[in-house]
Amino acid sequence: MELTHIEHIGIAVKSIEEQLPYYEGVLGLKCYNIETVEDQKVKTAFFMIGQTKIELLEPTSEESTVAKFIEKKGEGIHHIAFATKNLSDSLKEIEAKGVRLIDAQPRAGAEGLNIAFLHPKSTGSVLTELCEHPE
Amino acid sequence: MELTHIEHIGIAVKSIEEQLPYYEGVLGLKCYNIETVEDQKVKTAFFMIGQTKIELLEPTSEESTVAKFIEKKGEGIHHIAFATKNLSDSLKEIEAKGVRLIDAQPRAGAEGLNIAFLHPKSTGSVLTELCEHPE
Repeated sequence: MELTHIEHIGIAVKSIEEQLPYYEGVLGLKCYNIETVEDQKVKTAFFMIGQTKIELLEPTSEESTVAKFIEKKGEGIHHIAFATKNLSDSLKEIEAKGVRLIDAQPRAGAEGLNIAFLHPKSTGSVLTELCEHPE
Repeated sequence: MELTHIEHIGIAVKSIEEQLPYYEGVLGLKCYNIETVEDQKVKTAFFMIGQTKIELLEPTSEESTVAKFIEKKGEGIHHIAFATKNLSDSLKEIEAKGVRLIDAQPRAGAEGLNIAFLHPKSTGSVLTELCEHPE
């Protein structure tokens, strides 16, 4: 398995609109995309910095896992996503090493990526995502 | 202010030794440095992936802010650090925009970097660090 870089860092926020002045006005990053991922019941806002995206995650429903995260832990860093060249192979390799997966198969994520989550029980409580750019 | 990339992601762990099999054996990253930062009462382990380091933080004292973080929130992602070309100027600019700083002046961090933390009250609860490579 070859992980190439940190694809993005997901940050749970109550309101993207309220955070824009910090990310754009203070840090000087540019929000280049806002997208709703129905599947995960979140609205997402993306900023690029070097190789990595910052992904703000605003729940669109109380049923969203991000809403539950905020309720339990408050706003803050939600997950880290590594880029891999072959997601299916990476998942097989990781599972064979005894890591518990949330997604045994790749599924569609934001920005057209194929994604899968590993279970925090196997990753030192770090919610971890693997991403692959489709060919 | 120009932030160039994510310099590192800090992850609070109870034991670096217990996490090494995941980061090295599963993710395939290589721990290239283990260092104790007396000032912050932590032992740190570093892994490089693309432009970014993963920094595991293990408290060396119950008085460590990382020990308190783990007690309150559990193990997991602790902070995010952006690289800046001029830390003093960045801090002045950020403070002028009304952001609360933990460190008004740069101080010495791990791996010979100059660092400063912004206060999570001003950053949507994301503990945020700025880093500069000294010339």
